[in-house]
Amino acid sequence: MASVIHVETNKKYDVEVGAGLLLTCGDKIKAITGTCRAAIITDSNVSKLYLNKVEKSLEQAGFNTDSFVFKAGEGSKNIETLSDILEFLAENNYTRTDILVALGGGVVGDITGFAASVYLRGVRFVQLPTTLLAMVDSSVGGKTAVDLKAGKNLAGAFYQPEVVLADTETLKTLNRQELANGFAESIKYGVLFDKKLFDLFDCDLDDEKLERAISECIAHKARVVKNDEFDLGERKLLNLGHTIGHAIEKCSGYATPHGHAVAAGMAMIARASEKMGLAEAGTSEKIEKMLLRYNLPVDCDIYEDKELYFTSLGDKKREGGSITLVIPEKIGGSVLRKEAVADLEKYITLGKKGN
Amino acid sequence: MASVIHVETNKKYDVEVGAGLLLTCGDKIKAITGTCRAAIITDSNVSKLYLNKVEKSLEQAGFNTDSFVFKAGEGSKNIETLSDILEFLAENNYTRTDILVALGGGVVGDITGFAASVYLRGVRFVQLPTTLLAMVDSSVGGKTAVDLKAGKNLAGAFYQPEVVLADTETLKTLNRQELANGFAESIKYGVLFDKKLFDLFDCDLDDEKLERAISECIAHKARVVKNDEFDLGERKLLNLGHTIGHAIEKCSGYATPHGHAVAAGMAMIARASEKMGLAEAGTSEKIEKMLLRYNLPVDCDIYEDKELYFTSLGDKKREGGSITLVIPEKIGGSVLRKEAVADLEKYITLGKKGN
Repeated sequence: MASVIHVETNKKYDVEVGAGLLLTCGDKIKAITGTCRAAIITDSNVSKLYLNKVEKSLEQAGFNTDSFVFKAGEGSKNIETLSDILEFLAENNYTRTDILVALGGGVVGDITGFAASVYLRGVRFVQLPTTLLAMVDSSVGGKTAVDLKAGKNLAGAFYQPEVVLADTETLKTLNRQELANGFAESIKYGVLFDKKLFDLFDCDLDDEKLERAISECIAHKARVVKNDEFDLGERKLLNLGHTIGHAIEKCSGYATPHGHAVAAGMAMIARASEKMGLAEAGTSEKIEKMLLRYNLPVDCDIYEDKELYFTSLGDKKREGGSITLVIPEKIGGSVLRKEAVADLEKYITLGKKGN
Repeated sequence: MASVIHVETNKKYDVEVGAGLLLTCGDKIKAITGTCRAAIITDSNVSKLYLNKVEKSLEQAGFNTDSFVFKAGEGSKNIETLSDILEFLAENNYTRTDILVALGGGVVGDITGFAASVYLRGVRFVQLPTTLLAMVDSSVGGKTAVDLKAGKNLAGAFYQPEVVLADTETLKTLNRQELANGFAESIKYGVLFDKKLFDLFDCDLDDEKLERAISECIAHKARVVKNDEFDLGERKLLNLGHTIGHAIEKCSGYATPHGHAVAAGMAMIARASEKMGLAEAGTSEKIEKMLLRYNLPVDCDIYEDKELYFTSLGDKKREGGSITLVIPEKIGGSVLRKEAVADLEKYITLGKKGN
């Protein structure tokens, strides 16, 4: 049983969630794009597991496929890999009627979407997310990017896919840490918008419950993105935990995985908000307890307050001298709060458990 | 006396054409963007002539400026320079409320516009074109790009500036070849849409007539871009001479300047069209005569037909097995014609003078 979530941005498209979707992806994509040439972009881990399967499904549906495989890891999400993908497409004479297929996690999806948005000033692409993080977050909503030396996701485009097919079977090949990474972003939707969804993560998730949780996370994201495709208002809510989280990632030289950093950032901003009287009493404890259930970090004591603060100054959410923070007022309700950049340090200090 | 052309794409903006606009650019930009940080992007030739002037005008209007200067020439219009610009902006903590200022010719404008479109997924930018080619063509309409190894402008974005200020004084520092480059694209508008404009280029152009000609070219471009911002139909007309032109450029290793290649391409497609009965008798002779008046080439006898043909297969205007050509039916009237890619060779062969 697959669920379908309809995303209504300027481009309208479906996100399908279910077991076994990679096996039938060729026909499903064909129904939307017609047959053409398809360049499958994937990484060195995912290619071993699923490239053959996806190639076969696409070829059987009538596509001519090529594949481009880059080294797995956030370290590849840079302009050099983007450039290699673009040169690969150009050398192989890919034209405006052809498609790119992003097969993998967030790194693959983000860089493939960006490549699709700029190659010949825009060709169509499809997302086949294979991690929980990519399913609930990066593959939906059209934010594409690469990292710069100065920080993550600093160059990119808003560019929507033709369709997203999230095969939940792929989650079975993820290790605990990779799953936890995705649960951090999933729990975030509960904190932001939906107490019932939050509580669902307190159950033992069987396949059916997990598919439901994923679909509900995506439905929340689809609603937000429909109202604010270009991140000018409501969509900024999705950055809950991300300002401090990005600073933690960056301080670690990106050794700390994204979801883990976001979990710590979310727990810290909740703690600071509660201490400042901006959140209901008990909110941060509930968040902390839930994150710990998924073996996620809820604090960051290895970097000095000042280091985290100065690192967060390069955050792309900064606008001149101010920055918009996401305050979790209670489980299921959050608000945006514009603060002077200098006040961010106070949140970091109050966010730490020891302080 | 400056003329103002209003461009109505999704974003609406003005193109101002007149003598001395660089001197007052600070106030003019401030009226549109407000004061903020301004990163002036320019090249090693233009920086010597105008960087101080523009910095001074911006600073006096209240902007804080930085400048990034790269080596002049088409050879710099690549992903490496783009990457350098993006890292420069990030290192200097440029935020979403700041602006980029493109000061220079087509290379500067194209790469700066592309950088602005992707930095933090989009910051505002301003065009200060200093060549005739950039004024009548690349600075207006939002096509931004860099070259790939496989060909010109193969990666980019549609991204409109906040304002374009074309200071006609800067044309006085251009050499004959650079001017001719711009006249090729200017004459193109006459051939495409406007016999009177075409005939204007047959006069000796004083400052007033030149400003008028530039403004009329831009007005034609603005009209076309309004109707078809994303190059799905009518805008393809602006590619007159460009399919064969791009092949000539590429065969020359980009030693042949863009306008010169377009001139040859325009003369060749006109000649082929006339021989095939698709254009009024005498059309190609009129075009040839006009191009020769500006010392522009009207043929290409140094590359084999086959070489030009195979080189043009990488053209980004190709869509799967077909390509859309622009046929100049008469002076002031052109049409699009979709052809099988294989038929392009016939146009190349018939386009050569000797054949």
